[in-house]
Amino acid sequence: MRVEIINTGSELMLGRVLNSHQQWLCRQLADLGYTVDRQVTVDDSGPAIQQAVREALAAADLVIVTGGLGPTRDDRTRDVIAELLGRMLREDPTVLEHIEQLFRGRHRRAPASTRVQALVPEGATVLLNAHGTAPGLILEVAAPGPPSTSRLLLMLPGPPRELRPMFTEQFVPLLQSRFPLPAPFVCRTLKTTGLGESLVEERIHGPLRPLTQAGLELGYCARLGEVDVRFVARGEKARALVDEAERLTRGILGELVFGVDDEKLEETILRLLTERHQTLALAESCTGGLLAHRLTNVPGASRVFLAGLVTYANEAKQQFLGVHPETLAGPGPVSEATAREMAEGARLRAGADYAISVTGIAGPDGGSEEKPVGTVWMALASAGHTLAQRRLNPYDRETFKDVTAQQALELLRRELLSTGSAGTAQAQL
Amino acid sequence: MRVEIINTGSELMLGRVLNSHQQWLCRQLADLGYTVDRQVTVDDSGPAIQQAVREALAAADLVIVTGGLGPTRDDRTRDVIAELLGRMLREDPTVLEHIEQLFRGRHRRAPASTRVQALVPEGATVLLNAHGTAPGLILEVAAPGPPSTSRLLLMLPGPPRELRPMFTEQFVPLLQSRFPLPAPFVCRTLKTTGLGESLVEERIHGPLRPLTQAGLELGYCARLGEVDVRFVARGEKARALVDEAERLTRGILGELVFGVDDEKLEETILRLLTERHQTLALAESCTGGLLAHRLTNVPGASRVFLAGLVTYANEAKQQFLGVHPETLAGPGPVSEATAREMAEGARLRAGADYAISVTGIAGPDGGSEEKPVGTVWMALASAGHTLAQRRLNPYDRETFKDVTAQQALELLRRELLSTGSAGTAQAQL
Repeated sequence: MRVEIINTGSELMLGRVLNSHQQWLCRQLADLGYTVDRQVTVDDSGPAIQQAVREALAAADLVIVTGGLGPTRDDRTRDVIAELLGRMLREDPTVLEHIEQLFRGRHRRAPASTRVQALVPEGATVLLNAHGTAPGLILEVAAPGPPSTSRLLLMLPGPPRELRPMFTEQFVPLLQSRFPLPAPFVCRTLKTTGLGESLVEERIHGPLRPLTQAGLELGYCARLGEVDVRFVARGEKARALVDEAERLTRGILGELVFGVDDEKLEETILRLLTERHQTLALAESCTGGLLAHRLTNVPGASRVFLAGLVTYANEAKQQFLGVHPETLAGPGPVSEATAREMAEGARLRAGADYAISVTGIAGPDGGSEEKPVGTVWMALASAGHTLAQRRLNPYDRETFKDVTAQQALELLRRELLSTGSAGTAQAQL
Repeated sequence: MRVEIINTGSELMLGRVLNSHQQWLCRQLADLGYTVDRQVTVDDSGPAIQQAVREALAAADLVIVTGGLGPTRDDRTRDVIAELLGRMLREDPTVLEHIEQLFRGRHRRAPASTRVQALVPEGATVLLNAHGTAPGLILEVAAPGPPSTSRLLLMLPGPPRELRPMFTEQFVPLLQSRFPLPAPFVCRTLKTTGLGESLVEERIHGPLRPLTQAGLELGYCARLGEVDVRFVARGEKARALVDEAERLTRGILGELVFGVDDEKLEETILRLLTERHQTLALAESCTGGLLAHRLTNVPGASRVFLAGLVTYANEAKQQFLGVHPETLAGPGPVSEATAREMAEGARLRAGADYAISVTGIAGPDGGSEEKPVGTVWMALASAGHTLAQRRLNPYDRETFKDVTAQQALELLRRELLSTGSAGTAQAQL
């Protein structure tokens, strides 16, 4: 079975927005065992959409088109696909009622232009939009092959809040009954930190060779401060192959493996702290709240995370963390002494078991010869002691924040594993 | 001139990573006046890459391929393109020396596998990689047309830190001399907040009709709490058309327009506060540091932003902001009273001109009938008074944080415009 995705939108071709649909749809489909073979983005002009749809229908069993179903004049997907396939558009009373009801619920009148969203191509199955006005549409399209075969064409509205639940709740059940999977499919990613991509491969490629010869696909992806190792297998032995690959890799890389699949470092840390009934505070300067933001993205963070002090100004470091004026005047705000006082102050004042502090020069200005842009001091305070580390992260401002936050979280993860209050953390190595 | 981008990577097709190259390259090219006509993503198998490159070369003058130039076994782009075009691969001593030097600089030996990155297809121009090992490669490829025409094929390494400077610093000058622009190109986006997409169109479409008839392209993009209005024009009158479109739209939408192009709400706010020599503090609960993170992403934020208190636990609200225990016990942590005390406490303790506070129920747990998940109280404290607002943002956790942060920043923007300390802010309306 071949799957293709077409994302439409001139704002995508002009680079004005990020195409988050590609990743999201590919991920959902892969987790269900369907691999996307090709993804195409085109602008929202009629000929571009028609050409992409024509080419995709020539090759794929399932074609998913996103965007261009809304009420404005640049929303042309519905019209040009109906034209391409020679289907008439008819106003669907159920969709029209749904749109009007949505506006009534918001105590607003429906602008006349919204009515165009109730137009439905002949023979289409309608997916009502629980979070907006434009419905999704499914068409069966005759394939060039034997007369009994046909393609499935799915059109989804562009806004992620509308597309995602519609896909998951309404389309996935249809997909699974229409295209049952021929064989199991397993995909798993181990997230590692501390070694470059080529060294990771050098260490594990040989030991895993028997598995790759038995059909395991091995992939690598280098990211900021991380290397993902990906295992993919199909067929009856898929799970056993991937399990064995994970076991071998963990045996070789040990603590360098910090998570599985989507598990983020902040999730690992919150899991470890929750298991140990311990709490965390933060004292951030140069990461500017990113550490707190990442931790609080995880549901249940409030069980562990007490407070984050984003002390950007020197006065704030004194006021909220008790950093001494002499420390700021002497060693300076970016120094081991300040990092230690920040972490210890945050831990004490928030009443937390651990506190991480980060202070550095994010740039683009503020560097000196002794402390160039990218210089960071971070500290981790716990009941027994305070660790401090110097790092140099000479990147653009946002990358600097990302890398620094990752290092600070990794400092805490290592400490949690090494102190291993219980068997839980140790047992995972 | 036709431009196509091919992004390669099985991790993209499996939805394991976000394709940030698409947006970045499209944006860079559009800003230079080159519009990308088509973007394709395929996995990193040989046949998929070869088919995509073959199809793109049949139609486009410039084809950009990203990824698959690294040292691991799933990096096949260089090999399969050389094979497709019938070019021999030769080891390039300059590239090899560059790779070895990079490892020497890090005091590490170069793994044997890295050597493959020094292989260069016959006739290729090499772009040395200032931030990594894999070089970029440019090939001239004969076109099917008249013998004098040829296509340009550019291969770029996958990591954004390597791809971006290589593209900007090394490729753009080549691009501009090889494909000079036939006519000026102007693209501008006005960012609006407060009206839905169809209402924005309803208001401006008529008044702008003379401009669209004269060649202005008008586009809309609905985002979280925002609608982007995009103007595109080409030719000698491009700038005049876009300027006039902006003038008319601002006249109609007034304060609803908060920024231009990439200007983010946090940049607008930091600009306004910097102009007025005023300072800001934050007291965040449910946004968990996102407001501080957004503000500190902007270079120069430290001139305005003093401190952000992420007070997740009730005790932290008391300890760091001076919220009264009775307020937390009575009206509760998500209440107008708590929001006001948080903002006033942050303003006073940080010594700032303004402080924003946000407290709410991000979910998925913690809601009640009276205060369902998504309930938010936010407040803005200034010298004269404290404003408070209740909102309901019943979204998933991350969307909740995004929307809430946007509303809090907008509350401050409106206040800054209405108090307009100087002519500066008012004059922009």
